[in-house]
Amino acid sequence: MGVMKEYRVAVVGATGMVGRTFLKVLEEYQLPVKEYVLMASKRSAGSKMTFFGREYEVQELTQTSFDSGFDIALFSAGGSTSAKFAPIAAAKGCVVIDNSSQWRMDPNVPLVVPQVNPQDIAWHNGIIANPNCSTIQAMLPLKALQERYGIKRVVYSTYQAVSGAGRKGWDDLENGVRGFVDGQERPLEKFQHPIFNNCLPHIDVFQENGYTKEETKMIEETRKILGDPQMRVTATTVRVPVFNSHSESINVELEKPFELPELREVLARQDGIVIQDDPAKDVYPLAVNATGHDEVFVGRIRRDESVESGVNLWVVADNIRKGAASNAVQIAQRLIAMWNQQ
Amino acid sequence: MGVMKEYRVAVVGATGMVGRTFLKVLEEYQLPVKEYVLMASKRSAGSKMTFFGREYEVQELTQTSFDSGFDIALFSAGGSTSAKFAPIAAAKGCVVIDNSSQWRMDPNVPLVVPQVNPQDIAWHNGIIANPNCSTIQAMLPLKALQERYGIKRVVYSTYQAVSGAGRKGWDDLENGVRGFVDGQERPLEKFQHPIFNNCLPHIDVFQENGYTKEETKMIEETRKILGDPQMRVTATTVRVPVFNSHSESINVELEKPFELPELREVLARQDGIVIQDDPAKDVYPLAVNATGHDEVFVGRIRRDESVESGVNLWVVADNIRKGAASNAVQIAQRLIAMWNQQ
Repeated sequence: MGVMKEYRVAVVGATGMVGRTFLKVLEEYQLPVKEYVLMASKRSAGSKMTFFGREYEVQELTQTSFDSGFDIALFSAGGSTSAKFAPIAAAKGCVVIDNSSQWRMDPNVPLVVPQVNPQDIAWHNGIIANPNCSTIQAMLPLKALQERYGIKRVVYSTYQAVSGAGRKGWDDLENGVRGFVDGQERPLEKFQHPIFNNCLPHIDVFQENGYTKEETKMIEETRKILGDPQMRVTATTVRVPVFNSHSESINVELEKPFELPELREVLARQDGIVIQDDPAKDVYPLAVNATGHDEVFVGRIRRDESVESGVNLWVVADNIRKGAASNAVQIAQRLIAMWNQQ
Repeated sequence: MGVMKEYRVAVVGATGMVGRTFLKVLEEYQLPVKEYVLMASKRSAGSKMTFFGREYEVQELTQTSFDSGFDIALFSAGGSTSAKFAPIAAAKGCVVIDNSSQWRMDPNVPLVVPQVNPQDIAWHNGIIANPNCSTIQAMLPLKALQERYGIKRVVYSTYQAVSGAGRKGWDDLENGVRGFVDGQERPLEKFQHPIFNNCLPHIDVFQENGYTKEETKMIEETRKILGDPQMRVTATTVRVPVFNSHSESINVELEKPFELPELREVLARQDGIVIQDDPAKDVYPLAVNATGHDEVFVGRIRRDESVESGVNLWVVADNIRKGAASNAVQIAQRLIAMWNQQ
């Protein structure tokens, strides 16, 4: 019964939209941390942020930032920053939990949803990747179904919020809303087409095969997290005029036959899922209700009669919390628990 | 070479949101009509509407409305009105083109998208049904694919506009937009939950099997129009905060193998389709661009590698025009052409 160790944690990219949610979630989760250091690029360094009730000055992220010894660094600063600085931090013995797409498909980097594949945290080599927001929320129901019935094929169609496109994406929707009311058109900052009053089948960049990078991420990350490199998955990812929380229509073909009541039980038992499925009372997952929560909400659970063992699901989660900050903090939480057990 | 016959046409339900679009579309299509009579329920009877540049007084729809001899009646007045008055009109020798769901699945009533199954117009027994909006736009690409490759299975996920829920649905979104800007919350008139800043996986009423009636309509109507009663189809239908034009993510498994360039050609040759598919230039179908048009816009055409012969499509159309009024007027146009050839 020694003294519980307390850790030193860096938050890199603290001033961005997701970074601010990281701070909020860290305040809520109360990890055993003795010191936090907030870091950002030169442009944001020096700015002041309130965190745990006191003022923090954001430090500039440099080659020597991790020399003073950190246990964990939560990175949410974009792919190029992660590419450059995550290996530097890792080389100094700090475990990086990275929210960018930079390391996700690296075979030496585990890609983790703590309720789904916590065992993958153990084999990290200094970097643990946080999956894409639209992938994370799908993993909880799919993992539960995979374990009990096996998965033959998944068809995703997403309804993704603008918060996933950062502050400028949010502003494009808010400016569209205001322009509708006051008649003054504002220029778009982020999207190629108006997002207000529109659905954009275009998230991240297009690739040679006609898929967007977002669609490819969903397909590849699903296979990696569920540990089935050949899993049959396809995706159409769409930005909708919703500020926060992604919704997903997921069609799943299972390997084994199922009874619907048991399948519901299987989903309900999955850690991190809340079932909202009472059509008679107009109860189903909704973006406005998911916002601010860390659970993944699952409803519209019904048999797809067009295949032997098919099921349709409607899955909603806060893409900035469970889809980014909370999932990363939950990884840190499990990592610390692992250390404390050693 | 006789004189081209001119017809007498009734427009029933002229004062509703879709009814007004019927009038607009009729003005554009210039059918060989010698007289239009606008009809509506007692509540709206007596109101004045401008049509073809002159003022029409809306007549009350009664048991004897069709006694004076009509060739065609365009009904857009809801299921119960159609249930009661369509047979009365038909008994008087008038052909009813009905926009409600009342007669669609009646085996004695053809369900028609003119570019898809015009031959079905010929066997009418006095009533021709106009399909559900979300079904109509999917039929054009699916018919083209069915003819060339055969269809094994279809998975629909829809992104449906509030105009499909009528004036009150539109108002719920507009009030939500205004409330966001001025901070004053307005009560909902149509939807069970806020549609502004939200996606509602609930269109029409829920049924015993957990599907909404909208989803069941899409499944059953697809089978009827494509003439394949066993076709494997599933659907998740979702209301999104868009004023007009439905978008659809359609995943199709084909019977035969295909080459993507040829499949694109097959779609492009289909009457009524416009291909918008140039990702490098950010060109894909969008609700804001489809509004006001009668074509069905198809893009994001790409191979689904998760099955042997799969393809993903993004399909957008004006749900009030092609999804309702224009499709019905196009049926009338073909019916008249058929009569003129006899």
